[in-house]
Amino acid sequence: MKYLPGQTHQLPGGRLHLATYEAQHFYFEVADTVATIILNRPERKNPLTFESYAELRDLFRALAYADDVKAIVISGAGENFCSGGDVHEIIGPLTQLDMPGLLSFTRMTGDLVKAMRACPQPIIAAIDGVCAGAGAILALSSDVRFGTARSKTAFLFTRVGLAGCDMGACSILPRLIGQGRASDLLYSGRSMSGEEGERWGFFNRLSSPDDVLSDARQYAKNLAEGPTFAHAMTKKMLQQEWNMGVDEAIEAEAQAQAICMMTNDFHRAYHAFVAKQKPVFEGD
Amino acid sequence: MKYLPGQTHQLPGGRLHLATYEAQHFYFEVADTVATIILNRPERKNPLTFESYAELRDLFRALAYADDVKAIVISGAGENFCSGGDVHEIIGPLTQLDMPGLLSFTRMTGDLVKAMRACPQPIIAAIDGVCAGAGAILALSSDVRFGTARSKTAFLFTRVGLAGCDMGACSILPRLIGQGRASDLLYSGRSMSGEEGERWGFFNRLSSPDDVLSDARQYAKNLAEGPTFAHAMTKKMLQQEWNMGVDEAIEAEAQAQAICMMTNDFHRAYHAFVAKQKPVFEGD
Amino acid sequence: MKYLPGQTHQLPGGRLHLATYEAQHFYFEVADTVATIILNRPERKNPLTFESYAELRDLFRALAYADDVKAIVISGAGENFCSGGDVHEIIGPLTQLDMPGLLSFTRMTGDLVKAMRACPQPIIAAIDGVCAGAGAILALSSDVRFGTARSKTAFLFTRVGLAGCDMGACSILPRLIGQGRASDLLYSGRSMSGEEGERWGFFNRLSSPDDVLSDARQYAKNLAEGPTFAHAMTKKMLQQEWNMGVDEAIEAEAQAQAICMMTNDFHRAYHAFVAKQKPVFEGD
Repeated sequence: MKYLPGQTHQLPGGRLHLATYEAQHFYFEVADTVATIILNRPERKNPLTFESYAELRDLFRALAYADDVKAIVISGAGENFCSGGDVHEIIGPLTQLDMPGLLSFTRMTGDLVKAMRACPQPIIAAIDGVCAGAGAILALSSDVRFGTARSKTAFLFTRVGLAGCDMGACSILPRLIGQGRASDLLYSGRSMSGEEGERWGFFNRLSSPDDVLSDARQYAKNLAEGPTFAHAMTKKMLQQEWNMGVDEAIEAEAQAQAICMMTNDFHRAYHAFVAKQKPVFEGD
Repeated sequence: MKYLPGQTHQLPGGRLHLATYEAQHFYFEVADTVATIILNRPERKNPLTFESYAELRDLFRALAYADDVKAIVISGAGENFCSGGDVHEIIGPLTQLDMPGLLSFTRMTGDLVKAMRACPQPIIAAIDGVCAGAGAILALSSDVRFGTARSKTAFLFTRVGLAGCDMGACSILPRLIGQGRASDLLYSGRSMSGEEGERWGFFNRLSSPDDVLSDARQYAKNLAEGPTFAHAMTKKMLQQEWNMGVDEAIEAEAQAQAICMMTNDFHRAYHAFVAKQKPVFEGD
Repeated sequence: MKYLPGQTHQLPGGRLHLATYEAQHFYFEVADTVATIILNRPERKNPLTFESYAELRDLFRALAYADDVKAIVISGAGENFCSGGDVHEIIGPLTQLDMPGLLSFTRMTGDLVKAMRACPQPIIAAIDGVCAGAGAILALSSDVRFGTARSKTAFLFTRVGLAGCDMGACSILPRLIGQGRASDLLYSGRSMSGEEGERWGFFNRLSSPDDVLSDARQYAKNLAEGPTFAHAMTKKMLQQEWNMGVDEAIEAEAQAQAICMMTNDFHRAYHAFVAKQKPVFEGD
């Protein structure tokens, strides 16, 4: 990892504390076990660069080991989510690369999505304004998406002469909004409105621009106060079962849920129920 | 099978008649080749117990061999569908089990879903009121779902400290309502309203509480009067093709449909059409 | 190929020009690199026959090698899309076939779908009126679907005593509209209205009957003027990733997109952007 060592608190068994991590290419904070990542170059609508890609990848990889983060919010500064790969800082240099260099780049961006899907914390995206290209992929790679009516989500790779198959989009987007709607967005590169996104299942909820970040953080906080070991298992199995048969998925879940039944949180919930109290989960 | 032998009419070739089956832990009847299963502990909102799980599993396994049942309706008594695993009768005892015992339980509940997906008859769920936990899984494991506006469907495993991956939910729910909406329901445990369920594709239709059961039975009766050998093939292939590639699915369907073209029902339909009559299907 | 040799312009490397192709069982033209296929037996609502199936299969297979076609529109003449396999010309003869003959037929129809999914050009279906049986499968096998409010789409195989698993329907339809809605349509054989089709994600857009064909052609023309090598890669990867895991899909897309970054169209887009011009794509 390029960015993280030295800035994090190493714990026994390879575990980490990330609350003290000082991000170099975006805003990062941890509060109440909720990490918030805010892309913050608002004057350019928060584009990604080679450096921010790499730092995001390293951060999400580190989150797999973080004891002090139980849910993650990702958003953008100044009324936009993310405009994707910067034309001058990314597209231009890519036109100079040979095939090994290009493949190294597309694998790095893909590794960011892999890391987002592999970290145990649910990721809640708060999306206002422009959500385009690699920015739309960040939204796609989150677990839950809060949008605004005025948000514009575009998988606009086709506009720069590229294919819609970028960072897993042809796999993930059809599972969110259906194969036909995904095909339209990926071929045409057109924007999906906030209202379409809600109707189609891309957005879980539309909030006002003033509220979308706080709504996402409240949702994340609720999850962080829940049985977080179990939430991590839910996320893992949603990923594992992506291309399993039904019977294999049922056996996989029988094992996964039996593991969760060994946790203290399961016992806490039962005893709280019997005592007519609200359970207090601790994530173990 | 624990419950069924002795109560059913055994036929040559391993076939069964189930019309005389007297269920011990729910209401069961067969009329006009439509079986109706009604969970009937309405004072507790029809919870499941170890015994009712096992009897349902055995019944659905037997239905695979039943000659006298061509479609199945599942519902609950007294304005609720099913409240899921009973806290006192299931959750409490589970907190006392070791890992082999827990895995045995999660496999038994998974076996119920496997049996529902494997029996050849289409299953129509009629859902009013509470549809929670394992009850929501019964709904999910049906082929077609009729709901009511006031129904509340919740995958609330997270509320008892467990993961959303229960009995195949992480595999099946995303295919019904999309990966994003499924993620929200499975992480948060929140209720899906009847109106949301219809918009999202969980419910095929909303009926009034007075009509939901009779609407489901009428739908089942229509299917039971259709080409039931072919319906069973449809159900089988929906399951088989769950994680096939498109080309492999097309070959699998070429074989499956060629089999159906050898049936008498296919010939009956053609001759009825030529004679300008309504075909009478017999399921062979 | 039965129909095409001799009617097409063979080019070096196995490439073809299809603009001069004279179709025998439907209307075919190529204009501005957009091919239009119109089923044209309007007095019978454009049924398919053994001959039109075979010619469509051969044409779509040839399109994989066509240099002069960049997008495809498929529609029907006279206010209907397609009524499916003709009862007298197809169903009747099928009742006389033995199993090898039946399997040969179901494989031929499946090969048409395979060819539609394998040709590199996006296929836009323009659907008015009746869209039934194999006609509904042609719609399903397209990439983008424009419908009308009065269109009626029915997977009515069950009405002729057959299963819903025809030509890939149990694999593709659930990915477009969800597993539950697909199950209802495939078991019941009922018509999906235009409005339902739009809500559920089957139709990308509803047009007026007067406009649906021209809207589809305009959409196709826009794609044909885009980066068509990249569009073909999008189509290929939507197919390839159908049953891949997420991580495998991400690696597959890293390779596919790196290939696209080697194209001239990618460079054209960048240089146009820098010059504040609209890029002119050439498909290489």
